[in-house]
Amino acid sequence: MSVVIVGTVAFDKIETPFGKTDKILGGAATYISLAASQFANDIKLVSVVGGDFPQENIELFHQHSIDTEGLQIRPEGKSFFWWGKYHIDMNSRDTLSTELNVLADFDPLLPPSYQSPDFLMLGNLTPSVQMRVLDQLVRRPKLIVMDTMNYWMDTAWDDLMKVIARVDVLTINDAEARQLTGEYALVKAAQKILNMGPKFLVIKKGEHGALLFNKTQVFFAPALPLEEVFDPTGAGDTFAGGFIGHLAHTHDISFDSMKSAIIYGSAMASFAVEKFGTEGLMNLSDKLINERLQLFVDLVQFDISLVNS
Amino acid sequence: MSVVIVGTVAFDKIETPFGKTDKILGGAATYISLAASQFANDIKLVSVVGGDFPQENIELFHQHSIDTEGLQIRPEGKSFFWWGKYHIDMNSRDTLSTELNVLADFDPLLPPSYQSPDFLMLGNLTPSVQMRVLDQLVRRPKLIVMDTMNYWMDTAWDDLMKVIARVDVLTINDAEARQLTGEYALVKAAQKILNMGPKFLVIKKGEHGALLFNKTQVFFAPALPLEEVFDPTGAGDTFAGGFIGHLAHTHDISFDSMKSAIIYGSAMASFAVEKFGTEGLMNLSDKLINERLQLFVDLVQFDISLVNS
Repeated sequence: MSVVIVGTVAFDKIETPFGKTDKILGGAATYISLAASQFANDIKLVSVVGGDFPQENIELFHQHSIDTEGLQIRPEGKSFFWWGKYHIDMNSRDTLSTELNVLADFDPLLPPSYQSPDFLMLGNLTPSVQMRVLDQLVRRPKLIVMDTMNYWMDTAWDDLMKVIARVDVLTINDAEARQLTGEYALVKAAQKILNMGPKFLVIKKGEHGALLFNKTQVFFAPALPLEEVFDPTGAGDTFAGGFIGHLAHTHDISFDSMKSAIIYGSAMASFAVEKFGTEGLMNLSDKLINERLQLFVDLVQFDISLVNS
Repeated sequence: MSVVIVGTVAFDKIETPFGKTDKILGGAATYISLAASQFANDIKLVSVVGGDFPQENIELFHQHSIDTEGLQIRPEGKSFFWWGKYHIDMNSRDTLSTELNVLADFDPLLPPSYQSPDFLMLGNLTPSVQMRVLDQLVRRPKLIVMDTMNYWMDTAWDDLMKVIARVDVLTINDAEARQLTGEYALVKAAQKILNMGPKFLVIKKGEHGALLFNKTQVFFAPALPLEEVFDPTGAGDTFAGGFIGHLAHTHDISFDSMKSAIIYGSAMASFAVEKFGTEGLMNLSDKLINERLQLFVDLVQFDISLVNS
């Protein structure tokens, strides 16, 4: 099944308590498509980069069977750049620099072969850009997954609500779910969000795991307790990539399938944070992934005998 | 199996965004023993109250088959009193008043019938008082569980370390695990704590669930996502009570049994926070508890097919 992934492809410069990088490959669509490519084999990337984007990065996408026809290259421009520094607890970070560059006037043009995907992942971007993608589809995908962030709640509320109304799955973090609804209890926030349009909601809680809701069910997946979180950059996007990649591989968008997909996404995210940038997603074998999935099974499985029965 | 529970029996005055109470029954040993009494039937309470403690509260313990021979009544004194106010997020609170009263010079004397329990739960108390209990045992219990808090890390470090060295299970929250070890990653903190003496460690993360560690295994139990958290007072103690009550009922202190016990504890805590004070622990039927346990099964169970296998 084809998966179109829309989002940023960028350079990141990252500082953590464990070290720092020069400009390395980053961006939401990069993490999403690399993670999804472990499970799905017809991935099409929509993004924009500048003339400074090295051919070897494009070849990296091709090595992962990621189609880059929808990756616009603007030779006269520079790629989107983000420079951030993580605090000692790794849960918070300061942005030291953001240069939008070619992203500032990004118009996501879908090549004809991209206009009827089976699955669509809208990575975190300006809601109006996400909407532009939806407006170019010639038939509705089997599933549309959308990521967003608090910044768009502050600056583009009306556009954001229009996009949210048109997607099947929304992925946001717990603080964003609260901001979007004014509800502190996540169970209540979830029901309000599901009334905005999406049929499913994934609430990401970082080191505290993730929750999946539909109108009648809830599922909780833990994050793996790790000895070291080396670099959290891209963890949420990698999660989303593993999630949609697994769904596209199985063609199954039931609640039960989404539960598995969340475990797959969590497993991929656990690899991502163990190394800088996208390095943790390179050279992953089925064996390594299966071992990691088994850790999740071991982490949460229990046999319970009910009281007096 | 007999379970001796040591801790505070108190009056609490509680304010939450949803309402407030006058002085009501509270205290760590109260919540622990009420929760444990759902599963274990030979519970012996060690605590101290003043002449202001009403007979109806003592009868409440008896109705739950809790032996109060070890509950000292000091007619001339007043019971321990805590007055707290929760913030809007229910995760933080201000203490408006603490009156130690009869707790100030509490000497926990174990009646002869209390001196060889099968299970011992040391609720959060001054470490030297917890030690006094250990020193009166005529044989080592099958399992000693200890709760403590950051306050004793700040004020009674040496005593605390001596008690920790003598127990089997330590229960603390995530911030306390970090403070106790200087390690941010909970996996690392856990291993350091297990080197201090305990064979098992439970790290409570409130609305984010709980982790169980031994030297080679880890288990994660979520908290139930609730529509309303009405009053978090006693949630951790109720959790501990369900935990040790289930272990005492099954006589099984294996890692697998502790996994179930954590789910039992989490279920009991979810009842406690739905109402003010101990009210949520009154009139719980096996049916209600089993339905709640099933919610935990539904919340985390998933079937996963490994990659390409």
